[in-house]
Amino acid sequence: MARIADQKTDFPQWYLDVIAQADLAEHAEVRGCIIFKPYGYALWEAIQHDLNQRIKDLGVSNVYFPMLIPESILMKEKDHIEGFAPECAVVTHGGGKELTEKLYIRPTSETIIYSTFAKWVQSYRDLPMKINQWANVVRWEMRTRPFLRTLEFLWQEGHTMHATKEEADQMVMAALQMYTDFDRDMLAIPVLKGKKPEHEKFAGALYTMTTEALARDGKAIQAGTSHNLGQGFSEAYDVKYLSKEGKQERPFMTSWGLSTRIIGTLIVVHGDEKGLRIPPAMAPIQVVIVPIYKSDDEKEAVLKAAHEIEKSLDDVRVKVDLRDEKSPGFKFAEWEVKGVPIRIELGPKDLAQNQVTMVRRDTSEKSAVPLAQVNGMSVRVLLETIQQNMLAQAEEFLKTHTHVAMTKEELTAIIESDAGGMAWAAWDGEKETAMKVQNELKASIRLLGDPAEAHGKTDPVSGKPATEWALYAKAY
Amino acid sequence: MARIADQKTDFPQWYLDVIAQADLAEHAEVRGCIIFKPYGYALWEAIQHDLNQRIKDLGVSNVYFPMLIPESILMKEKDHIEGFAPECAVVTHGGGKELTEKLYIRPTSETIIYSTFAKWVQSYRDLPMKINQWANVVRWEMRTRPFLRTLEFLWQEGHTMHATKEEADQMVMAALQMYTDFDRDMLAIPVLKGKKPEHEKFAGALYTMTTEALARDGKAIQAGTSHNLGQGFSEAYDVKYLSKEGKQERPFMTSWGLSTRIIGTLIVVHGDEKGLRIPPAMAPIQVVIVPIYKSDDEKEAVLKAAHEIEKSLDDVRVKVDLRDEKSPGFKFAEWEVKGVPIRIELGPKDLAQNQVTMVRRDTSEKSAVPLAQVNGMSVRVLLETIQQNMLAQAEEFLKTHTHVAMTKEELTAIIESDAGGMAWAAWDGEKETAMKVQNELKASIRLLGDPAEAHGKTDPVSGKPATEWALYAKAY
Repeated sequence: MARIADQKTDFPQWYLDVIAQADLAEHAEVRGCIIFKPYGYALWEAIQHDLNQRIKDLGVSNVYFPMLIPESILMKEKDHIEGFAPECAVVTHGGGKELTEKLYIRPTSETIIYSTFAKWVQSYRDLPMKINQWANVVRWEMRTRPFLRTLEFLWQEGHTMHATKEEADQMVMAALQMYTDFDRDMLAIPVLKGKKPEHEKFAGALYTMTTEALARDGKAIQAGTSHNLGQGFSEAYDVKYLSKEGKQERPFMTSWGLSTRIIGTLIVVHGDEKGLRIPPAMAPIQVVIVPIYKSDDEKEAVLKAAHEIEKSLDDVRVKVDLRDEKSPGFKFAEWEVKGVPIRIELGPKDLAQNQVTMVRRDTSEKSAVPLAQVNGMSVRVLLETIQQNMLAQAEEFLKTHTHVAMTKEELTAIIESDAGGMAWAAWDGEKETAMKVQNELKASIRLLGDPAEAHGKTDPVSGKPATEWALYAKAY
Repeated sequence: MARIADQKTDFPQWYLDVIAQADLAEHAEVRGCIIFKPYGYALWEAIQHDLNQRIKDLGVSNVYFPMLIPESILMKEKDHIEGFAPECAVVTHGGGKELTEKLYIRPTSETIIYSTFAKWVQSYRDLPMKINQWANVVRWEMRTRPFLRTLEFLWQEGHTMHATKEEADQMVMAALQMYTDFDRDMLAIPVLKGKKPEHEKFAGALYTMTTEALARDGKAIQAGTSHNLGQGFSEAYDVKYLSKEGKQERPFMTSWGLSTRIIGTLIVVHGDEKGLRIPPAMAPIQVVIVPIYKSDDEKEAVLKAAHEIEKSLDDVRVKVDLRDEKSPGFKFAEWEVKGVPIRIELGPKDLAQNQVTMVRRDTSEKSAVPLAQVNGMSVRVLLETIQQNMLAQAEEFLKTHTHVAMTKEELTAIIESDAGGMAWAAWDGEKETAMKVQNELKASIRLLGDPAEAHGKTDPVSGKPATEWALYAKAY
């Protein structure tokens, strides 16, 4: 097993080492893209499986739109295209000929979907309309990192259309709450949620809501986002409907998405010096059984017992590591770096004492457990304990790394401290002030809290009266 | 409800009408692409859900490779690229700049996957290696039809690597059998399976195996295919491994795929004059309950009973059609065109007699069923009966439309008959002879049967001694 860089002193290299050693992904031969290997893709499948059900529970139907968007359609919403056109990959040739109109690989699908919505909605009876797609998108990023920022990534994008701004607001919040619940229940990741400042909102949106997690290096990382797009796209794509009162009205749109970036989030929030730690709820392998033996007789007895345990663990995703060519020590390290929540070690000495050695990945706690007590029920309880403990650990980390800064010195001290973290501070609402912090401290406003907190306070950077309560952090 | 063209006299228009009326898909604003609407995408989700498990049962792991393939990688396997390069969409610009190397949107992923396999395999211990991905691909087709032939389509592509040709042969057959079982169990579609003639094989393959179904217009339609790629790609991408005996060897590859075309197959195999017929095993809605009422009192009583029935149908995918603005007659027609296997009609008269009216989509059979007999168990039994009956109907159709032709006149008569169908005939093994049939009768060799059948026979077209037993048909 190759070594993993020290998490405390070289987090960026640690991150890359964990991805390589846990065999999640590797760089592809096309710049900025990764190959999702079986173990990495299994994480995405677990995410899809759970989130897909939550999306359906919101009354949203899955669909699929083409990935190629004609230039004339992409170019209609001015703010949107200013944000996205420079990031696009462009198809100019097809079937051996130059195309008469360029096609853009979707960087996101508002344009092609809303131009179609114009055909789908006629009357107020057709509203709300709620769809979602699981798709690949391409954004021409210059600096890429596996999962966190790649040219091509996988995501789900929800798109809805409503009669009123209030209903759209409610949908935006429902999607945000869905991501928050999903992050907590599946990923054991606590997030802060709030509105993005105006200068950080989605291109073409009225406003953007975001969920932000905190990585172990003290940097913020955006999880799912949810946008109220107002009526801008309705106007650009001439979407209208006949209201109950018989008037032509423009519907309000929302869009919201969560991408394979969340796998990177999982790594930087839960990973430790030994590698990945996967919350049991989404672990492709929840329990690994490592048999220990020297002689053939020992092997036979140990494997027989291992398979009996495997069978007894109903409703648990369990794997017996049967590889003969790898030592138990190698296997322990490998399953630790892969973040499997529970390891069961089973050797002749354990068998003689009618026990197994059980090791928790979240705490490294090691205990002898009588064979009679190893069953589906007891292991499922332990998995749930681990899930809750990982959430509690992450909540504690978030809490102890979130501060309030009343002065510029405090803000600077928090942001530039070795531990990193996030700082609430009063903000005058000016982009210039936010940019000053960005330039000086490399920290951005991640989201806005309750403006009442800013009441009567002064922006610590500009000295002007504050209007917003802003959460600053360095970010991924 | 708009009308559907007559299936017997205008099958192509019938096909388009069914897709529109059943609300499966529509043309997108980019040429040759379709939008999968919720009901159409639900069919694909049902297919994915079932087939994905079968793929995993073959010991195959899901992965995801980038969709953009650098020209230098795509161009390495000569036969392959001759087949696919003319069909590719080409990205020449990204991030606002012209690229130094063109990127091709994958038409299939052998090239990028096998160039990566070169890094993944070192020793015989790494073999077999079996992966699969669910992905979108683009092929620049000139004449397109929804589902059957589109520029972008969705599919799964399996890719495996083996130590010997025999193991690769076995994998090819295992994938073919998987498709055959899937087609029969889920889609109620019987298929014929066999080898493609040399001139119809996959570009770069040693040989291609195919499954062929028969549409109601008498044309053959290819379902899943499975290729033994031999060592061609191993050589092109310099993939090698150290054998048990310590020698450098080239592995053998296989690939196999099934696409959204299968939804078109479903339509043309099972659809009838009233529209779609979906086999219960994959129906997004297995039972629809249509309440019938006039007064508010009637409505209350009928809806109460409808929801009670809905609740009693455990493990059945059931929907109560609550739309007030549509008449029962409209609803009957709509659920018929959407192919829902069972319709339950429920009005005041039914309630008075403690019964429902149950209508089977496969036979149009209508029967009064006592309320006490409507439950999850009885309905699941009926759904299974419908599934088996649809398979039996399709098998009967396949049987009665598959003939043997001993002379050119017989071959011509079968192919050109109004009913269409497939004809087994002796073949001399020459591409020229096959092309002659293609030109004269618009029929191609769909697959090859047992060559022993050809023994001592003469090719009815060329008059030369036959070496192969070929299945001719017009095809999609």
